Amino acid sequence: MRTSIATVSLSGSLTEKLTAASQAGFDGVEIFENDLLASRLTPEEIRGRCADLGLSIDLYQPMRDVEAVPEEEFGRGLRRARHKFEVMRRLGADTVLVCSSVHPLAVDDDDLAAGQLGRLASLAEEFGVRVAYEALAWGRHVSTYDHAWQIVERADHPALGTCLDSFHILSRGSDPKGIEDIPGEKIFFLQLADAPLLAMDVLQWSRHYRCFPGQGGFDVAGLVRHVLRAGYDGPLSLEVFNDVFRQAEAGPTAVDAHRSLLVLQEAVGPAGLPGPVVPTGVAFAELVTPDAEPVSEVLGALGFARTARHRSKPVDLWQQGEARVLVNTGPAARREGTGLAAIGLESPDPGGAARRAEALLAPVLPRRRAADDVPLEAVAAPDGTELFFCATNRPELPDWRADFEPVAHTARDCGVTRIDHLALVQPWHHFDEAALFHRSVLGLSAQESVDVADPYGLLRSRAVSNADGSVRIALSVGASPDEDTAHAQHIALATPDVVAAARRLLAAGGRLLPIPANYYDDLAARFEFADGELETYRELGILYDRDAHGEFRHCYTRTVGRVFFELVQRDGGHRGYGAQNAPVRLAAQHVTGG
Amino acid sequence: MRTSIATVSLSGSLTEKLTAASQAGFDGVEIFENDLLASRLTPEEIRGRCADLGLSIDLYQPMRDVEAVPEEEFGRGLRRARHKFEVMRRLGADTVLVCSSVHPLAVDDDDLAAGQLGRLASLAEEFGVRVAYEALAWGRHVSTYDHAWQIVERADHPALGTCLDSFHILSRGSDPKGIEDIPGEKIFFLQLADAPLLAMDVLQWSRHYRCFPGQGGFDVAGLVRHVLRAGYDGPLSLEVFNDVFRQAEAGPTAVDAHRSLLVLQEAVGPAGLPGPVVPTGVAFAELVTPDAEPVSEVLGALGFARTARHRSKPVDLWQQGEARVLVNTGPAARREGTGLAAIGLESPDPGGAARRAEALLAPVLPRRRAADDVPLEAVAAPDGTELFFCATNRPELPDWRADFEPVAHTARDCGVTRIDHLALVQPWHHFDEAALFHRSVLGLSAQESVDVADPYGLLRSRAVSNADGSVRIALSVGASPDEDTAHAQHIALATPDVVAAARRLLAAGGRLLPIPANYYDDLAARFEFADGELETYRELGILYDRDAHGEFRHCYTRTVGRVFFELVQRDGGHRGYGAQNAPVRLAAQHVTGG
Repeated sequence: MRTSIATVSLSGSLTEKLTAASQAGFDGVEIFENDLLASRLTPEEIRGRCADLGLSIDLYQPMRDVEAVPEEEFGRGLRRARHKFEVMRRLGADTVLVCSSVHPLAVDDDDLAAGQLGRLASLAEEFGVRVAYEALAWGRHVSTYDHAWQIVERADHPALGTCLDSFHILSRGSDPKGIEDIPGEKIFFLQLADAPLLAMDVLQWSRHYRCFPGQGGFDVAGLVRHVLRAGYDGPLSLEVFNDVFRQAEAGPTAVDAHRSLLVLQEAVGPAGLPGPVVPTGVAFAELVTPDAEPVSEVLGALGFARTARHRSKPVDLWQQGEARVLVNTGPAARREGTGLAAIGLESPDPGGAARRAEALLAPVLPRRRAADDVPLEAVAAPDGTELFFCATNRPELPDWRADFEPVAHTARDCGVTRIDHLALVQPWHHFDEAALFHRSVLGLSAQESVDVADPYGLLRSRAVSNADGSVRIALSVGASPDEDTAHAQHIALATPDVVAAARRLLAAGGRLLPIPANYYDDLAARFEFADGELETYRELGILYDRDAHGEFRHCYTRTVGRVFFELVQRDGGHRGYGAQNAPVRLAAQHVTGG
Repeated sequence: MRTSIATVSLSGSLTEKLTAASQAGFDGVEIFENDLLASRLTPEEIRGRCADLGLSIDLYQPMRDVEAVPEEEFGRGLRRARHKFEVMRRLGADTVLVCSSVHPLAVDDDDLAAGQLGRLASLAEEFGVRVAYEALAWGRHVSTYDHAWQIVERADHPALGTCLDSFHILSRGSDPKGIEDIPGEKIFFLQLADAPLLAMDVLQWSRHYRCFPGQGGFDVAGLVRHVLRAGYDGPLSLEVFNDVFRQAEAGPTAVDAHRSLLVLQEAVGPAGLPGPVVPTGVAFAELVTPDAEPVSEVLGALGFARTARHRSKPVDLWQQGEARVLVNTGPAARREGTGLAAIGLESPDPGGAARRAEALLAPVLPRRRAADDVPLEAVAAPDGTELFFCATNRPELPDWRADFEPVAHTARDCGVTRIDHLALVQPWHHFDEAALFHRSVLGLSAQESVDVADPYGLLRSRAVSNADGSVRIALSVGASPDEDTAHAQHIALATPDVVAAARRLLAAGGRLLPIPANYYDDLAARFEFADGELETYRELGILYDRDAHGEFRHCYTRTVGRVFFELVQRDGGHRGYGAQNAPVRLAAQHVTGG
């Protein structure tokens, strides 16, 4: 199916928007009138620019307050329309969106509405234009898609059809099944947007909170299935605007947008995408750092041993149980300070995983960095984290560890068995994008997002994981672009006994984040503990939570650069990440400056 | 009346919050439990810190999900409460807030609720604690203040009273008149918050959009009047949190908060504040700049003449009609680049205006900068703009112009008569504060705020003015802290004939902001014009708007540093500021880089 996007969905000047839409792979655009008004290009020049970029102009929008008004007001509307049809002729756009009236003089009279829309369509016909009539969810008298269709049917004019918009339909709770009763050729256009499920004024909801399909709570795919069954064969077009996208760069937003339509097409029918290859574990986490010493000190205290070194690059492999951490002091590290740069994911089919990622517009990284390196499949996530698809210990496939030479080491185990989860900080403008990326590209499942109070703002956090929990990634973002969210990036290590692990860490000279005594008074109020248990937690700085699925105990190292470590003991199938304790942890990190 | 603020209303650590509350002049605080949990101070140390800062601890909050639950669950609640009462004893807090239950097991049974709350109160009494029961607007079975009061009345326990919260009452649309039927001594506490009128889920509304009294749409003063008539004599306490305050610095937020309570007290009865002195005109606008040349060039093209120079400072006075612009190349200018630094307001009583401003916590600036300067009353607005209270041409009072020596000049008038309005950019975290400041300190009236689409985000804008429109200030702020809103700061000059003024400016070598041709095609669609009128606007770059009150024509100069000028022709009592045209203007400014 053809894909299209409304220019209002992207930020910047009209030319920036068109370029971004074209580069992301869209086939066409809806031209939002204000973008045209603010542009120095003439309509003819815009038409030429779109042609050069390979974009069709699928819709000109919106025209407002035309129908169901007194004759004198309708006359003014026709006058406006004539001017706009002339602009459309110059632009080469053949379909105009007409929104149901919110005019204060509009009356509840379907005959009048149909009659006036028919007259508008007759005028449009003279200019070779089709009128697509859409019910705004907050339309004065026409606010549902079936009502708009009844009026179109009543007008019975070849140049008049309806436009369906998933936001307007689903935000009202309308049943989209009735769409199948509309003849496909009378559905002139289909606009798609998703939105989080919020109980708020629908106009504000629409203006500030729309998001791309798959990023919100609507069943957009279900709606599209009904539209396709009706026989619609026009483009799938995104009309999405919210306060965040308005500020985000057009380029990444357009890529995000196009990915959402690819995933949507896969959901509604064969889309030709390589199938998802769900990762089955974490092969490694890679830290970059300009100075290996502070990181090595923490890893050593945590019981990791430096077991191997890369043959050709300044990269050390630290290991404990199945937890592996690479410490890279190469050139990238010197640029960026200490941070989490890459994740190795165990993949049943690394090549297939990379092909799906590429089909879903993830940048593919070079398979081989140096001439004699093992070729590895890798892509970049939206936040820049490199994702390597690995096949550790699988003789039939290249093993990333072949690039490493073992080094002599002494083991001093702390009981860490594997990486429990990785916490990644997302750029402010791309939080929803990140969750959709990890779901669609990696085939992980997303939990609900939660808000966590930091002393200096709210953090939003959302976890994605595979079915058995062997891959868990917590995505978080601050409340605003200037928020310092560096504290959230970390590597959580699983252990069956966090108390023992913490004691061994302290015995090795490591330090844990101190937790205020008041926190333990509160734990005492909330839970009953075995004798001495709470005192142990208080002594070591271990945090505790419990839910219907089990218990969660965890503690934190000091921060090195932009990254810290967490020791995690999950019991009884607890599925959380300690969100309840996050405000106390964040406050403690602010106090200690890390 | 005593004033108090909940620590959750301020950002930072608990000690930062307490310090900010004390310095802003609050008498007491509510200790929000999470702030205590995250603090390294023991309850005893917090008690000492508050005593040192002159703050009473008026409330400990919140306790949740205690009442109307099965006995086993209630037992757990009592156990939690005993721990908390012990903390309160150490803290020296004697009132605890209990919110109506949202527990999934809570039942709709007022007898059970009253019985359990009575048992809780009996336990509290042992610790010298009083229980203030409050209806959350989203409480499971108890969501209105009168229902909460009925339960308290039924329990009939001396240590049990009610807590009233203006947000919970007014967000539900409850009639606050019934408060007068509650015996004053049973109103244990009063929490105040305002909020913009939003039709949204009340929990989200409460968590993200509360604001200080006078900054939202609730009649908080009306509610307080009812509470006082009931006989309440406890503190007025602010419990306000929103996404913006969480990130703002605690100090300015606390000042803003305390100002809101001072204004509220004035609204409900004699508060001892000096009365407002409404300004009657704009005496001058002062630009600071490191280089007078570019500003002088624009002023010259606009028809201003350099009529005088300050006797002792590098400040020039430019004048045309009653419009006066000071150009200051002094030390401040060299630090900050070119911008609007000060406004002179004509005041019927400069001393009284300054006294009111000081009483409302505006920083007072030194009256006399140099030994022989005219003493001038001046205060700083929240955005740092200096406001001078002037008495131009009033022999009985010092005239700021006495500091200036006339210089020879030739007049080349463009028809500018006075300053129409000043547009000030507000720091992102303090937009609501700015409007309250201008209303309460200066006695100006505020219009509704409007959103304006910029190519890279939404701007919010709100105008304040005096009754006859001789003082108009447009306050604006970007959609987020990283937004570039520099384009919004400007000086708008009134002229009876903007076409003539624009022509003279161009003839003098000045340049106007070019407006896209597409904008004029749209004007042609929307309005009918006299022959040649639209062509003139198109040629010159004049923007046009019309409403029920009249017409508005305006055009813009190029930007110098962070400031530009607008020429404005208002006819027939038009009250707007060209918001309809702002997206086109903003896009044009982005294109030209100013």
